[in-house]
Amino acid sequence: MEEQGMPQMIISDPPTIYYLTGKWIHPGERMLALYLNVNGNHKLVINKLFPQEKDLGVELVWYDDVEDAVEILSQFVEKDKPIGIDKVWPARFLLRLQELGAGSKFLNGSMIVDYVRMVKDEHEQQLMREASLANDKIMEELIPLVVKGYTENELNAKVREMYAATGHSGVSFDPITAYGKSGADPHHVTDDTKGKRGDSVVLDIGGILNDYCSDMTRTVFIGEVSDKAREVYEIVKEAQQRGIDAVKPGARMCDVDLACRNYITEKGYGEYFTHRTGHSIGMEDHEYGDVSSVNEDIIQVGQVFSIEPGIYLMDEGIGVRIEDLVIVTEDGCEVLNHFTKDLIVVPEE
Amino acid sequence: MEEQGMPQMIISDPPTIYYLTGKWIHPGERMLALYLNVNGNHKLVINKLFPQEKDLGVELVWYDDVEDAVEILSQFVEKDKPIGIDKVWPARFLLRLQELGAGSKFLNGSMIVDYVRMVKDEHEQQLMREASLANDKIMEELIPLVVKGYTENELNAKVREMYAATGHSGVSFDPITAYGKSGADPHHVTDDTKGKRGDSVVLDIGGILNDYCSDMTRTVFIGEVSDKAREVYEIVKEAQQRGIDAVKPGARMCDVDLACRNYITEKGYGEYFTHRTGHSIGMEDHEYGDVSSVNEDIIQVGQVFSIEPGIYLMDEGIGVRIEDLVIVTEDGCEVLNHFTKDLIVVPEE
Repeated sequence: MEEQGMPQMIISDPPTIYYLTGKWIHPGERMLALYLNVNGNHKLVINKLFPQEKDLGVELVWYDDVEDAVEILSQFVEKDKPIGIDKVWPARFLLRLQELGAGSKFLNGSMIVDYVRMVKDEHEQQLMREASLANDKIMEELIPLVVKGYTENELNAKVREMYAATGHSGVSFDPITAYGKSGADPHHVTDDTKGKRGDSVVLDIGGILNDYCSDMTRTVFIGEVSDKAREVYEIVKEAQQRGIDAVKPGARMCDVDLACRNYITEKGYGEYFTHRTGHSIGMEDHEYGDVSSVNEDIIQVGQVFSIEPGIYLMDEGIGVRIEDLVIVTEDGCEVLNHFTKDLIVVPEE
Repeated sequence: MEEQGMPQMIISDPPTIYYLTGKWIHPGERMLALYLNVNGNHKLVINKLFPQEKDLGVELVWYDDVEDAVEILSQFVEKDKPIGIDKVWPARFLLRLQELGAGSKFLNGSMIVDYVRMVKDEHEQQLMREASLANDKIMEELIPLVVKGYTENELNAKVREMYAATGHSGVSFDPITAYGKSGADPHHVTDDTKGKRGDSVVLDIGGILNDYCSDMTRTVFIGEVSDKAREVYEIVKEAQQRGIDAVKPGARMCDVDLACRNYITEKGYGEYFTHRTGHSIGMEDHEYGDVSSVNEDIIQVGQVFSIEPGIYLMDEGIGVRIEDLVIVTEDGCEVLNHFTKDLIVVPEE
């Protein structure tokens, strides 16, 4: 913190508070703020609704629903010094803290903890392996349902049921179960579309198991696959493999992105790969450290991120994305998903 | 906006953007910002990942993953005028906007839209009725599972499955399925506890159906109910009814809270009713406008909120809460939940 010019800092997001104190607290819209000071005067300002039995290793400061939580927090802040603010802290709290003049300068302080959380220890790596193994199984059960003529919304509900039924506390993100043209829109909102012969089907799913997230994508086809779609599929598959091959400690995050992107560009589809190649993942589906062309951070052993290139041809209704998670190892990476990436054509109903 | 001294404003939360444009956009951690200006120069700054086919009634400004979204947004902001900020806007965006000097003063601007969203029109009221009817049914199916000896986590998973299987897009909040002492901790984190004879069981559940939330609580007992627990139950039940009876246009929100609170205090349990009486609800489970002793806002026809007093005796392991949603009508309110509030003792397994 001192190196970054932030002698004090506020952390509010529950995963980081869990990471630091070992306790999950879900405050909803109520303020939960861990105040850290290099002088050791740490406090956790917390609503009385969340009584704590265990020692969290930090002094607790209580407030109730009729008190001004930020005003209570501001009493600990050294007003003449800069303060780091959690990147996710909602404006309603930050604006009030600024109004109270609690801090000489307000800075985004999240990088400090983000860099720590980016590297997963052995225990975390094991939890992420298990979450992805469970996800592989759910993908395997999901694909046959595409055959049954389910709508996107029905598939979405089914996959949620599968996570709920297998010990997951929830989905990592709203599952994407998109047919044809919808799959070509990388962030299409699930609707009542049904699949039809020739459609590509993008299945991008993940769940939260023992506090850690999975996230994978496979694209399958219904009944038949056109030559164009097959070409696109094989390009994405090869690009994804090149991304995996580019992962090693000491390389840069952007090298992974470029390994995928350059190949797709070379094949003439560069403009249809409209997003970054991946994102870090752990207790949250999207964590700090993306696999993009502008992230020059050096890859470290223990990082976990997704590699998920795609090609989206809106006019032709073809959308293909393939995604695995990887853990960075001493000499490359371990791929956490084992479900096949061979092209699958499922029968029509 | 002009009345509030905010000639310009940034709105970022998806439900409000849906409310204003008719389109749900889920940007995840990417910036989505609706810039409003009293001069009519409105813009929606949006990532290229979310292509829009329909006209949203506002000019779209696109950015991609390698651009500085806030810098693009800042070009539209009148730097010499105050700007209202959405209360949920994450600090990473607000701090960057401030760094760019985009605005002479940064104010919490959410009250402007919050007050509009607080009053539900006929269509919204109907959706909320339907969501709560579905919730009543799920409560009815859930209670028999308590008998089966399910752990809290298993009940939690089951209730999630029930929502997924009945057309809900998800839960409104992490379901509370808490036995005995856990139920006495109003925001206990669900664990592997099993119920035992004499336990109170707090079931606080809600789902999202057609974009609107339900939320209700019932407390049941396993095998037997002690005299003390019965006394507490009946006090909470009567307090909750008094809250309902206090709702009418023209009264204040705090009058509803006090109707519950004064009765519980009169009966000697005031200090064990540790939270506000309720919260507004609609597209989000918790919306602006709480039912608390400090909210002197006048109740208006069309508001929807929860009435959920509780008494929590940690030492004796007794927790009781009863919650319904109500819509404010011309002469009182309509209660949206119809599941019985009579004391239920379920048999042991």
